Amino acid sequence: MISYELDNTRSEPLYVQIYEKIKCDIELGEIKSGEKLPSKRAFAAQLGISVITVENAYNQLVCEGYIRSVPKKGYFARTIEKSAHKPVTKELPIDTQTDENSVTENELFPFTVWAKLMREELSGNQRKLLTKPPFEGVYELRSAIAEHLKRFRNISVTPDQIIIGAGTEYLYMLINLLFGNNYIFGVEEPGYSKIADIYANYNIKCEHIPMSDDGVDMDYLKSIKTDIVHISPSHHFPTGVITSIGKRYALLEWAVQSPDRYIIEDDYDSEFRLSGKPVPSLFSIDVMDKVIYMNTFSKSLSSTIRISYMILPATLLEKFRKKLGFYSCPVSTFEQYTLARFIDEGYFEKHINRMRVHYKKCRNHLFEQMKKFDIFKNAEISGENAGLHCTVKFDTVLSDNKLLEEITNLGFKASLIKKYYHKKNQPDYHTLIFFY
Amino acid sequence: MISYELDNTRSEPLYVQIYEKIKCDIELGEIKSGEKLPSKRAFAAQLGISVITVENAYNQLVCEGYIRSVPKKGYFARTIEKSAHKPVTKELPIDTQTDENSVTENELFPFTVWAKLMREELSGNQRKLLTKPPFEGVYELRSAIAEHLKRFRNISVTPDQIIIGAGTEYLYMLINLLFGNNYIFGVEEPGYSKIADIYANYNIKCEHIPMSDDGVDMDYLKSIKTDIVHISPSHHFPTGVITSIGKRYALLEWAVQSPDRYIIEDDYDSEFRLSGKPVPSLFSIDVMDKVIYMNTFSKSLSSTIRISYMILPATLLEKFRKKLGFYSCPVSTFEQYTLARFIDEGYFEKHINRMRVHYKKCRNHLFEQMKKFDIFKNAEISGENAGLHCTVKFDTVLSDNKLLEEITNLGFKASLIKKYYHKKNQPDYHTLIFFY
Repeated sequence: MISYELDNTRSEPLYVQIYEKIKCDIELGEIKSGEKLPSKRAFAAQLGISVITVENAYNQLVCEGYIRSVPKKGYFARTIEKSAHKPVTKELPIDTQTDENSVTENELFPFTVWAKLMREELSGNQRKLLTKPPFEGVYELRSAIAEHLKRFRNISVTPDQIIIGAGTEYLYMLINLLFGNNYIFGVEEPGYSKIADIYANYNIKCEHIPMSDDGVDMDYLKSIKTDIVHISPSHHFPTGVITSIGKRYALLEWAVQSPDRYIIEDDYDSEFRLSGKPVPSLFSIDVMDKVIYMNTFSKSLSSTIRISYMILPATLLEKFRKKLGFYSCPVSTFEQYTLARFIDEGYFEKHINRMRVHYKKCRNHLFEQMKKFDIFKNAEISGENAGLHCTVKFDTVLSDNKLLEEITNLGFKASLIKKYYHKKNQPDYHTLIFFY
Repeated sequence: MISYELDNTRSEPLYVQIYEKIKCDIELGEIKSGEKLPSKRAFAAQLGISVITVENAYNQLVCEGYIRSVPKKGYFARTIEKSAHKPVTKELPIDTQTDENSVTENELFPFTVWAKLMREELSGNQRKLLTKPPFEGVYELRSAIAEHLKRFRNISVTPDQIIIGAGTEYLYMLINLLFGNNYIFGVEEPGYSKIADIYANYNIKCEHIPMSDDGVDMDYLKSIKTDIVHISPSHHFPTGVITSIGKRYALLEWAVQSPDRYIIEDDYDSEFRLSGKPVPSLFSIDVMDKVIYMNTFSKSLSSTIRISYMILPATLLEKFRKKLGFYSCPVSTFEQYTLARFIDEGYFEKHINRMRVHYKKCRNHLFEQMKKFDIFKNAEISGENAGLHCTVKFDTVLSDNKLLEEITNLGFKASLIKKYYHKKNQPDYHTLIFFY
C-alpha cells in the first residue's frame, strides 16, 4: 500500500500534497498503470486525515486523467502515454480555490467597479486613449493578461505573444486568415456547433472527431487527414469531459508528426471550475510551439464586452506579423485600458471567485431538486465539476423526446445531448444537458 | 442664353438654387450635352448676383459630373448616361456648409464630450448596457446613423439595414463571408492597397481597374470579368477624383446586367468635403438593390474608436441574416450607446464641421507654402475640394524620385502617386500626393 508523509506546515492544502505525490508516482511508474489505489476511507485512516481530503485529491487526479473511478470498485491508475516532449515539471498553479465553475449573468457583473475604472480612465491620460495601439492590442492589457495567466493558469507568455480580438469569432477569422483554407480542421463531435458553422462559412473542410471519455478519440483522429484540431481540453461542451493528461500528451505527440499540424486550445470556461484545482493547459505543457491558446472575456465578464485573446507560439507569431500585421486592433482603447486595470487591480479574480460560488450554489440547488424525483434514480451525472452545465444519463426506456418532455414538465431546463452532434440520426442517448 | 428666376426668400443659398436649376435642365435635356454654359462673370451680371455665387454653383456641378471645366474655354454640359433606373428626383441634402474636407487628429477629437457621454451612459441603465445586442448592433446606434444619413447624405434607410462592425476590416470580412470567394472583386488602380491586400488574404481574385478623370474606366470594367466593384465615388484615394453623376449611372447600369454584380460604395471620407455640397451617394440613386454602402467612425472620430457600419440592400440583407445572423456584434455596448448619443445630440455634426474648418486651414496653409517655391509654378493641383489630401502634377523634367527628394527637402510631406499602383514599374507621373 502506498504511503506518504504529509507536511502540515506547508502552505498547500493537504489534498494538494496528496494529489501531487500520487501524480508524481504515476508519472515515475511507481504506481503502475491499472494498479488499484487504496480506498478513500482506508487511505484517510492510514494518513490520519479526513476522507474529504482524500476525495478532493482523487477527484483532481480523475479530472486530470491520472486515475479513473470505476463505480463500486474504486480508483485505478491510468496509462500515461507520456511523449518525449516535456515532463510535467512545472509547478501547478497555487490556487487553493476549491469552489469553481460557471457562466456570467448580468446581475453578477461588477458594473459599478467597471464603470468606476472606465470613468477614471476617461479622466486620465487623453493622449494615451487616443493613440492607436499596435495590431496586437494595447500593451497594458496584454501585459495584464500575461500576468493573470501566469498566476492562475501557470502559463508563461510574454505580452508580445498575445493578440487581442473582438470576440472569439474575430479570432476564428484571424486563424482562417493565418492558415488559409487549405488546412483541414478537426472539431469535437458532439460539440459547440457555432465553431463548425464558422469554419464552414470560410469554406474550411471540417472533420468531426468523436469524443471518448477522456478527450477526442485519438484512433479516429489518426485515421483521418486533419491538420488543425480545435478543442476544449479544460471542459468539453456538451459532454463535460476534461481531457486527461495522457490524452494531452498524445495530442501533442500527434501534432509534432507534421509541420502543418496545430492544436487550438479553446479555454473558454476554464475559469469556472467548481471543484478541485484547474487542469494544466495544453499550452503550458507544449514545448514544440504547436498550441494556439484562446480565451474570451465575453464569457467570464459580460457578453456585451467583446474582448477575447489568443496566444500564438513563436513560429506562428512571425507568420502572423507578416501576413496580418497591417490589420488594426478591433477593440477600442477605452475598453482595453479599463480591462487592463480591472485585471491588474484584482477585480477580475474577485469576480471569477464570486461567479464560482454562485454557480456552485446553482449546481447544488439543481442536484437537490433532482433528488426529489424518481426519474433521476440511478441517473449518472457527469461533468459537474467544471463549466456551466452537467450531463445526466438516465436509466430509462423512454425515448429521448419523451424523456426531455417529462423533464421539462418537472420544471427543469435541459436539452438533449443528441442535438449537439453534427451527424444527424443519432440514436437515443438518454442523456440530457442541464445548465445552471 | 439660359436664364433663371432666383428667389431671395427661399432658405437655400442662391448658389444651391442655381446649381439645382442647371442640374435639372441638364437632366431634362434643356441644356444639351456639349453645350457651353455662360461665363461666370456674364451669368452673374445677368442674374444680378456675385461671381462667387455662380462659381460655387458651377463647382458643385463639376464635382458631380454634370458639367466640365475646360481651362481658358469655359464650362460645358457633359453627357449624362442616364439609365432607366431612377431619376434624381430626391432633394439634395440641405446642407449649407461650404467649408468641408479632412481626417481626424487627436487634439481635435472632442474627448471631453465623449467622456461625459460615456460617464453618463455608465451611470444610467445598467440592464440596457449588459443586454447582448442583436448581430446588427445596438438599435439606438443604428437608428442614430439612419437619421444622420438622412440629414447629411440624403440616404433613406431603416435601422434594420444597418450592420455595425468593428472597423472596416471587420466589414470586409463580413463581405467575404457573405459572398464567398468565388466572386471576382474589382478595386481601383491606383488605390488604397490595404483593400486589395485584405481581399488577397481571403484568396479573393482581384481585378485592378484603372481610374479615368471621372471615376473607374468603364470600358476596362466591361472588358473583364468582375462581379463586385469596391470603389470610393465620393473621393478617390489617391487621385482625388470624384465620380461623375454620369459615371455613377453607368456603374449602376453595369451592375444590373447580372444578378451576381454589386457595388461596394466605400464612403470613408465623404464627411470631409472642403468646398461645395456633398455629392449624392451611389446608394441614394440605386433602386435595384445593387449598392452596399460602407462608412467608418474610425476616420471621422478617432482611430482608437473602432466602429464602422455598412448598409445592405434588402436582397442581401436576407442572405446575410441566414448566413451570418448567428455572429455576435463585435463592438461593446458601452461604446455603441455612447456613439448613438454623440450623433443624436449633434456632437458628431459639430465635430465634423470643426474638422472641416481645420483641414481647410491646413490646406490653405499648404497652398500658401507652395506659392513660395518655383517648383510649383505651372503645377496642376487636383482633388483639393474633398478629403484629406490633394494631388499635384508638376511641370518638370525631374525623375519622380528626384522630384520627391526636392519637395521633401523644401519641408513638404508628400508621397509619389506611383506608389499606390498595384502594377509595378509605372512610368514617372511627376505627380505627388500632399496630406494636410
